[in-house]
Amino acid sequence: MKSYVKMTAKEREREYAAVKKQYEELKALGRPLDMSRGKPNSVQLDLSMGLLGQEPTELIITYKGTDVRNYGELAGVDECKQLFADLLGLEQKNIIMGGQSSLSLMYDCVVRALLLGVYKGSKPWSQQGTIKFLCPVPGYDRHFAICQEFGIEMINIPMTADGPDMDMIKQYVESDPQVKGVWCVPKYSNPTGITYSDDTVRAFAALKPAADDFRIFWDNAYIVHCFEQEDDHLLNIFDACKEYGSEDMVYEFTSTSKVTFSGAGLAVLAASEGNVKFLLRQMSVQTLGYDKINQLRHVKFLKSVEGIQAHMRRQAALLKPKFDCVIGYLQREITPRGIGWWHTPNGGYFIAFAGLPNTAKRTVELCAEASLLLTPAGAPFPYGKDPEDNTIRIAPSYPDIPSLASAMQLFCIAARMAALESLG
Amino acid sequence: MKSYVKMTAKEREREYAAVKKQYEELKALGRPLDMSRGKPNSVQLDLSMGLLGQEPTELIITYKGTDVRNYGELAGVDECKQLFADLLGLEQKNIIMGGQSSLSLMYDCVVRALLLGVYKGSKPWSQQGTIKFLCPVPGYDRHFAICQEFGIEMINIPMTADGPDMDMIKQYVESDPQVKGVWCVPKYSNPTGITYSDDTVRAFAALKPAADDFRIFWDNAYIVHCFEQEDDHLLNIFDACKEYGSEDMVYEFTSTSKVTFSGAGLAVLAASEGNVKFLLRQMSVQTLGYDKINQLRHVKFLKSVEGIQAHMRRQAALLKPKFDCVIGYLQREITPRGIGWWHTPNGGYFIAFAGLPNTAKRTVELCAEASLLLTPAGAPFPYGKDPEDNTIRIAPSYPDIPSLASAMQLFCIAARMAALESLG
Repeated sequence: MKSYVKMTAKEREREYAAVKKQYEELKALGRPLDMSRGKPNSVQLDLSMGLLGQEPTELIITYKGTDVRNYGELAGVDECKQLFADLLGLEQKNIIMGGQSSLSLMYDCVVRALLLGVYKGSKPWSQQGTIKFLCPVPGYDRHFAICQEFGIEMINIPMTADGPDMDMIKQYVESDPQVKGVWCVPKYSNPTGITYSDDTVRAFAALKPAADDFRIFWDNAYIVHCFEQEDDHLLNIFDACKEYGSEDMVYEFTSTSKVTFSGAGLAVLAASEGNVKFLLRQMSVQTLGYDKINQLRHVKFLKSVEGIQAHMRRQAALLKPKFDCVIGYLQREITPRGIGWWHTPNGGYFIAFAGLPNTAKRTVELCAEASLLLTPAGAPFPYGKDPEDNTIRIAPSYPDIPSLASAMQLFCIAARMAALESLG
Repeated sequence: MKSYVKMTAKEREREYAAVKKQYEELKALGRPLDMSRGKPNSVQLDLSMGLLGQEPTELIITYKGTDVRNYGELAGVDECKQLFADLLGLEQKNIIMGGQSSLSLMYDCVVRALLLGVYKGSKPWSQQGTIKFLCPVPGYDRHFAICQEFGIEMINIPMTADGPDMDMIKQYVESDPQVKGVWCVPKYSNPTGITYSDDTVRAFAALKPAADDFRIFWDNAYIVHCFEQEDDHLLNIFDACKEYGSEDMVYEFTSTSKVTFSGAGLAVLAASEGNVKFLLRQMSVQTLGYDKINQLRHVKFLKSVEGIQAHMRRQAALLKPKFDCVIGYLQREITPRGIGWWHTPNGGYFIAFAGLPNTAKRTVELCAEASLLLTPAGAPFPYGKDPEDNTIRIAPSYPDIPSLASAMQLFCIAARMAALESLG
């Protein structure tokens, strides 16, 4: 096989005709599939059926005797806070248990910062003119949607193999007081699958923001989502912050959306003791507390960090063949033709395919015309605008493997067509 | 027994000495009790144990085949929306299922109105200077706390036997574009227990607000919470609105916090189809949906409106003797002395005791000194300020009947002392 770039115009013309023929054949088969979101497959969800059907009387009383059916325990029940404190390498006093959506916790933190500020006496963000968030790209579209919703200006920060470009982040954060936040998915990043290096995490901890109300939104969504033998190492950002006394700068989030049930799991906010106190005071106006029975359900089912890890190995056994399938297709069909690159992740939910410039929209469009729905091109960028139009998020979790193989067959054909079209 | 007002100074002095002696005796007994909140008793919570321990495989698929363990169904599952549509006399298209806290739904509506406005193109409330909410008083402290949190000016509206003073409400709403909302608990109102008359509901529906972004926050928390033979009748506000085309003016809320579990129930937002669409678009930035398994749990357990009503009759059997106990003490100890008034409710969770002016704080203080914690005096008023200092919210649900009887014994003694002190 020859690199498309090195082909003569004539060769490319012949290749395009051949690929187009294959595309039309696959299109005619019409195998509809929605791969647009990172949804777990139902077999993965089956792994957590033990959450349901637990002995009712075991779900109503905490070990300190609180009746969880009633109001109270705004920050969550102790045993559940302890479980996630253990997971995050923190203490109970650093944990707030949310509902089932960590996105909600992030949204609520942004909303409260806009209306009330982030520490006692700080000026609400909404009263400080146009504020800005830094957005490592490609990144998670729902993070960017929160900023867009509230008119927060987003600044693209390129991702490297070690995480975001920290020189650029440092420069923005330390020079511009309008920069109030940064979105991070530090482990098995959505969608690149990259894990931030220790140096990157330390560089975040070492930031000296121009704004005293700057916050790092550390969305540790894939903390236990390794599907290879060896888990990526991620430095605990709060440990790194200790050295600089910068713990107040970080809001960390995680959830069990992709551990137990996406629609009925648990979300967690972790922060410095001071931030937790401040946030709980604000939260107390919004609610009397989140579902504590579901907290006990999770504690009884997952038991411990080791229990979570064992559970995630069962998830890994289901996910790994799917990632292998995707990577296999890309390696066979894309690499030899020199028209696409990606990081092969050890965990997480996504692969970010980087094609030739100006091919992403066209590839997604070709797939859609052949009934395969991918995440829209541009989605992993603020305002949905991929400046190079070359990034596509691939989400292998939802389809079964035969469907995924069909989808990748089509994807590679579409990517080849788009590449040939862009090369002219 | 003689009315305290009609006593001579000498008689009052003698009476005070006698009452004080009784008070000291009760205080010495030191029977600590927290009656500060409207919490259900654990026996009430036991009535809903059938929610737990349901067959797991019955909790995972909706009747249209959606796997509720996964993401999706932002507005909730159809069968759950239908259940609450039936309860509220509305249609599925009018219903958004929330998490377990209707307070959160209200808070989020206020927050979004502040930051984003209430209809497409409307100016966010936070960009319109000081805005105002009308607050029928006495009312629910957590409503007022939301306004206070965001610097929304609160205006007291007196309650009558038919609901809030509608002349006053009409005058404010129709003349002042800064008035953006009103808090209502239209049935078994917190804390008076009054249900709004049909005329009151119609007067709300007929409002022609000066602000085109005015909203009625209709917190129908006690819709099925009758504990007497005959349920109070409350006109469906959306029916009333039809006549005036004013459906967009109303956000209705309810929850199962006092039907099933206070800490793990379901919250509901009901609104016009246009408002639901608008709110769902906003909500889609915050979350991918609330816990749908808990929605199915409730549908399987409660089954239908008739199922809810049958369940609430079991709740009533537990609550009625407690209200009878409170009312009995008040009738025997307070009425003959002419030092307190209240509405005897047919349902809900509270009794609002109105004593002589300048006695509420003192009564609550005397109770606290004898280890009985009541809702703080002033709590049912904006900014915690009861202009007459005469209203105390009594919450009979949590204690068992012997404890409640002890508490009322003490309460009546304390109220008598406070009354005598205020009369001098």
